[in-house]
Amino acid sequence: MMIQKELKEDLQLKWSRLQEALLKINADGCLLHMDVNLFYATGRVFNGYFYLPAEGAPWFFVLRPNGLTGERVRYIRKPEQMPELFAELQIPMPQKLLLEADELTYNTYIRLQTAFQPRETGNATQVLRQIRSIKTPWEIEQFRFSARQHALTYAEIPACFRPGMTDLELQYEIEARMRRNGSMGLFRTFGSNMDIFMGSLLAGENAETPSPFDFALGGGGPNASLPIGANGTPLKEGTAIMVDMAGNYTPYITDMTRVFSVGKLPGEAYRAHQVALNIQQEIEEISRPGTPCAELYNRSLAIVEREGLSQFFMGTRQQAKFVGHGIGIQINELPVLTPRSKEVLAPNMVFALEPKFVIPGVGAVGIENSFRVTEAGLEKLTVCEEAIVQLPFEQINIL
Amino acid sequence: MMIQKELKEDLQLKWSRLQEALLKINADGCLLHMDVNLFYATGRVFNGYFYLPAEGAPWFFVLRPNGLTGERVRYIRKPEQMPELFAELQIPMPQKLLLEADELTYNTYIRLQTAFQPRETGNATQVLRQIRSIKTPWEIEQFRFSARQHALTYAEIPACFRPGMTDLELQYEIEARMRRNGSMGLFRTFGSNMDIFMGSLLAGENAETPSPFDFALGGGGPNASLPIGANGTPLKEGTAIMVDMAGNYTPYITDMTRVFSVGKLPGEAYRAHQVALNIQQEIEEISRPGTPCAELYNRSLAIVEREGLSQFFMGTRQQAKFVGHGIGIQINELPVLTPRSKEVLAPNMVFALEPKFVIPGVGAVGIENSFRVTEAGLEKLTVCEEAIVQLPFEQINIL
Repeated sequence: MMIQKELKEDLQLKWSRLQEALLKINADGCLLHMDVNLFYATGRVFNGYFYLPAEGAPWFFVLRPNGLTGERVRYIRKPEQMPELFAELQIPMPQKLLLEADELTYNTYIRLQTAFQPRETGNATQVLRQIRSIKTPWEIEQFRFSARQHALTYAEIPACFRPGMTDLELQYEIEARMRRNGSMGLFRTFGSNMDIFMGSLLAGENAETPSPFDFALGGGGPNASLPIGANGTPLKEGTAIMVDMAGNYTPYITDMTRVFSVGKLPGEAYRAHQVALNIQQEIEEISRPGTPCAELYNRSLAIVEREGLSQFFMGTRQQAKFVGHGIGIQINELPVLTPRSKEVLAPNMVFALEPKFVIPGVGAVGIENSFRVTEAGLEKLTVCEEAIVQLPFEQINIL
Repeated sequence: MMIQKELKEDLQLKWSRLQEALLKINADGCLLHMDVNLFYATGRVFNGYFYLPAEGAPWFFVLRPNGLTGERVRYIRKPEQMPELFAELQIPMPQKLLLEADELTYNTYIRLQTAFQPRETGNATQVLRQIRSIKTPWEIEQFRFSARQHALTYAEIPACFRPGMTDLELQYEIEARMRRNGSMGLFRTFGSNMDIFMGSLLAGENAETPSPFDFALGGGGPNASLPIGANGTPLKEGTAIMVDMAGNYTPYITDMTRVFSVGKLPGEAYRAHQVALNIQQEIEEISRPGTPCAELYNRSLAIVEREGLSQFFMGTRQQAKFVGHGIGIQINELPVLTPRSKEVLAPNMVFALEPKFVIPGVGAVGIENSFRVTEAGLEKLTVCEEAIVQLPFEQINIL
């Protein structure tokens, strides 16, 4: 099958990049266990371990599901069986072994370390996140598909709106359209304190509510166990509605934000929105391989300060200190566009740029798009109306 | 506010249980960081740490969100500031400290261990999961609300069905009803390899597909990154549809499964379904405080074997070795109803019992309900039609 051939070539490209990284830090091998890393490195999620030595072909040690076959697949009942299998299969035992130190639980990490007894361990999470920041041709095709469906869904948002709705009711309608347009539902994030469901919709004063999580903006959320996003705010005249729902139409998530208004907004909201569009334009102009990510943040902030909008930038009561982030299988990948980032843009990085303002009493305005870094600059993946779209605030009687 | 008073009493009950457990194992304190444990112990999710000493009142060390106030709340920028604050606030430094060893990442655990330098560490995950298995009166009220909304949604399932649909299309309709009935969306699981979105719907042969995850049944899922549940199977005549969508209408999730059929099913499917109901009845009869959880599994299996249905019980190509599990903020809490479980039922445990059979070529049948252990036996929380509900397989033209 054509797709399988493409997938195989994609995996081999990923393995060769990973092996290059292993050799550079004198690691003998890398053992992956987390779902997202397994999907990245094998094209599927299974319960088990993927072992890639610094040279040679990888091995798959599988607990579940039953029925996976392949020359380099071995079934195990527990991780302690791997060292025995290494001996049997004449795989050299790694002296320096990379494990997912920022993702595995403490007990799982210790268990693997005890089983393998490497002389040294290194952090596979860090290495994987670096490698995953440069997308492969196959991954970029996944983004393109997500972006198209994402735009399709956003175009349906005005049809989701009915006067008298709350933010949650509008979000439910958008979620239903997302699913019908092929969203896989599950929205993957990196880090343990990043709960979210399908994305964020912020309306009115709720846009000011600080969140515990590391997203661009907050919101009170539906209950105390999920303090992010829509909270039941009525969508009344003069309210800005910021829609930042996931583009998870493939395992590769595009990130896109658009703003809708119930009737007209105050003039300052349109002005701030325009400033966000101006920031986006400037960033598109200066971005190319080699541009420091910190520069993208600093340029954005300079425009914000020049326009006198600092106190509204990326929140009010709590302000996020970034203006964008890498995207991929998880919504918060590398690079990060922060003032202290040491990263520079490189071809085939894919990132979201999201200059946003919160206008007290009105809501959030601004823009977010997903961009691919090309040899010459940026390619915008998420193409869709960028102006604030006005929704009717009065019930229109048709009878 | 009445609710706040109730919540405060609830938290004090939880703290006293946790302190009792700490004293029993000579631990000086417990530091919690994971969202679900923070919600359990504080009634909210924040980015930070909750410290409960074995005696005395707890402390809240908060990174985000801004704006939390309280006598025992202190803001920090990084966890390393906690030991300084302990000195300043004259909190005794714990010699034996419990950390969430089965949940914290390796690097976070090491960071906390390095900051606190306790003489000994213990596993807060284990202790919390034990304590969380006995629900408080407030938690039971949350379950009751979830159960009512869960039943309400399931009663709408026949109205979601249209001939010619796929399993995914039916699931989307059910998800939309769930949200409108107040589902919080996010479906919380314990463990790193337990991806799922809002629940599982299994139809036809897809019910046989083994999954990497530790759920009762499998299914191929929408794509290779999410191999669980519905996969696009057409719902044609003679197909059994097993609906096991989350009851997350509060942070406390009820678990309930019901079966629908497109037209009539073969006789063996109805017979197996009846056996599942018989198992449920027997378990309801023998369960009371003190009943070993292993006994619940063994009794179920004995009935299955007597009826000659072993090869279909809890899957075919891969069979789950449990017949139920505790539920709570996460769908897979303690106790577990497995052959080797050492746990016994205790008052106010809340668990799901789910005897299920997979009939090749037809789909999955069986039952799942959520039960509370009372002083006398079991109370069924999820009350809703238990027979297989037949759906029309022909389009009915109304014009």
